[in-house]
Amino acid sequence: MYIAHPYLLFIGDAPDDLAAKTAQGIADWRPEWCLGQMRLPGCKADLKLPDMTIADAAAKGAKTLIIGVANAGGVLPESWSPMIVEAIERGMDVASGLHSKLTTLPEVVKAAEKHGRLLHDVRHPTQEFATGKGKRRSGKRLLAVGTDCSIGKMYTTLALEREMKKRRMKADFRATGQTGIFIAGSGVSIDAVVSDFVSGAVEWLSPDNDADHWDLIEGQGSLFHASFAGVSLGLLHGAAPDALIMCHEPTRKHMRGLPHYPLPDLKTCIDTNLQLARLTNPDVKMAGIAINTSKLSDNEAKSYLAKLESEYGLPTVDPVRTGVGKLVDKLQAW
Amino acid sequence: MYIAHPYLLFIGDAPDDLAAKTAQGIADWRPEWCLGQMRLPGCKADLKLPDMTIADAAAKGAKTLIIGVANAGGVLPESWSPMIVEAIERGMDVASGLHSKLTTLPEVVKAAEKHGRLLHDVRHPTQEFATGKGKRRSGKRLLAVGTDCSIGKMYTTLALEREMKKRRMKADFRATGQTGIFIAGSGVSIDAVVSDFVSGAVEWLSPDNDADHWDLIEGQGSLFHASFAGVSLGLLHGAAPDALIMCHEPTRKHMRGLPHYPLPDLKTCIDTNLQLARLTNPDVKMAGIAINTSKLSDNEAKSYLAKLESEYGLPTVDPVRTGVGKLVDKLQAW
Repeated sequence: MYIAHPYLLFIGDAPDDLAAKTAQGIADWRPEWCLGQMRLPGCKADLKLPDMTIADAAAKGAKTLIIGVANAGGVLPESWSPMIVEAIERGMDVASGLHSKLTTLPEVVKAAEKHGRLLHDVRHPTQEFATGKGKRRSGKRLLAVGTDCSIGKMYTTLALEREMKKRRMKADFRATGQTGIFIAGSGVSIDAVVSDFVSGAVEWLSPDNDADHWDLIEGQGSLFHASFAGVSLGLLHGAAPDALIMCHEPTRKHMRGLPHYPLPDLKTCIDTNLQLARLTNPDVKMAGIAINTSKLSDNEAKSYLAKLESEYGLPTVDPVRTGVGKLVDKLQAW
Repeated sequence: MYIAHPYLLFIGDAPDDLAAKTAQGIADWRPEWCLGQMRLPGCKADLKLPDMTIADAAAKGAKTLIIGVANAGGVLPESWSPMIVEAIERGMDVASGLHSKLTTLPEVVKAAEKHGRLLHDVRHPTQEFATGKGKRRSGKRLLAVGTDCSIGKMYTTLALEREMKKRRMKADFRATGQTGIFIAGSGVSIDAVVSDFVSGAVEWLSPDNDADHWDLIEGQGSLFHASFAGVSLGLLHGAAPDALIMCHEPTRKHMRGLPHYPLPDLKTCIDTNLQLARLTNPDVKMAGIAINTSKLSDNEAKSYLAKLESEYGLPTVDPVRTGVGKLVDKLQAW
């Protein structure tokens, strides 16, 4: 799967910014790929991109219409069919991050076949993967892990890529979730892979590379999340990371979706990730800590980061507040 | 999915006993469900059951034709279609453990629709599962874990069920792999479940039960298997076991399928399973150790089991050589 750009981002009638967060992520991280946004009447989200019709975007060379909006139940409404068909007729591929597939809309399937365009359902891997082999690969790998889901792993990894490219290091973000896939233009939605093939899929996603090249692999879930720890472990083993970044949000009260589970303490979470990662890469080390301090004041954030830094002896950043320069310094010297 | 019995076991032209090991497992553990075997010319395996045609088995009341043979590549040859269709016409459901689905044979699908019979592809879960919730359930749970794949987890669990039922304890084997599913008549092929839903599928498989009831859950893989550890962890978290049995084969040289990986030592493997199991059941304890001593002499086996027993302070058995009575003694006093 390779999603051609530039993109037209469709956010429908998103009731708020949160419903358009996939599209917002793309606009934030790949502004150069985003020609414009398309909104329906009543849309409350705004990506601050030019509003365009399908015809406008096609005229400007849009290659893919991205359905970048979260609907209740992940459903693709039949009423969007004519708009999607028009995009296809005007030469665009279509990519959706919804649970319900583009291929469930018969008009869309017919149009794609007729015009030879691609339909990407990025949550549904079409690739067949082998089981993981656990063999060392050339090149270097970093994996973002976390105390919980939705705690900054993708953001941190993308910030690292941006900073490393700025320093002319060889680095590639490797996407394992839907928003990441739109941003990378390719990847594997790892939580949708059949369990037997999770580590194999990550090995496929991050093959042999130059000795001085870094794959920056997007983590998923947490080893301490009762729903998804198995996904996180398969990803950890397949990634066989040389370097781990631990992501955390210090004010979160419980594991996402599980009010009866507290977050693990940072030390336990770091130790357990290192311990289990050693199976496929005995040389794994921590590269640093990335904290989402958005709920702390400037002073609180500063002293919290400083405290962790001295406690763990690791560069500790908030990718938004401080940038990830300190982490990249460490990777440059790896 | 519920597979109706009695069964007719089809083993085709199996070139050796190994190719018929699924059917052999059913014949060993559910002899009362097995009316007979059906073999094609050239078959080298023998389940020591009466040879029957489809017509014979139907006349004796067979409810399901079981395709219990491993083919190269897991393929279902077109040439078996007429035989399967005959079974359907004579009133049987059909259940297959092969990778390629019964539903890929158009004649078979047509016959099943016409006669209202069920086609069970036990490697391909059709059920939709929720994500795991990590909530405590009533009743007691035991999970067999192991240092490696194919190391006696299913055999040990089934031996426990047999012994516990003999002692009139409330106990049910819960199948997580294809052979186990044929033996239980239901279950979930856990390595074929989409990774996000593995722990949820195990929660579904082992729901609330009487306080004195034991679910005996078949383990899969190993936390130390680089290909499948994620599956094992999702299974461990979903099972939320009160009791673990560690399974091991002391002469095995390397992890199955991974010649570059040695087996973990028993102590590390026990400690890691307990450590990770505590996330969803903080009260988890080891119930004992089950060793496959088939490659040791009587004396070697005896002294090896005695050594482990004193080293770990846990009842240690070989389910084949010594039976599992000692383990059940411990579970009776749980």
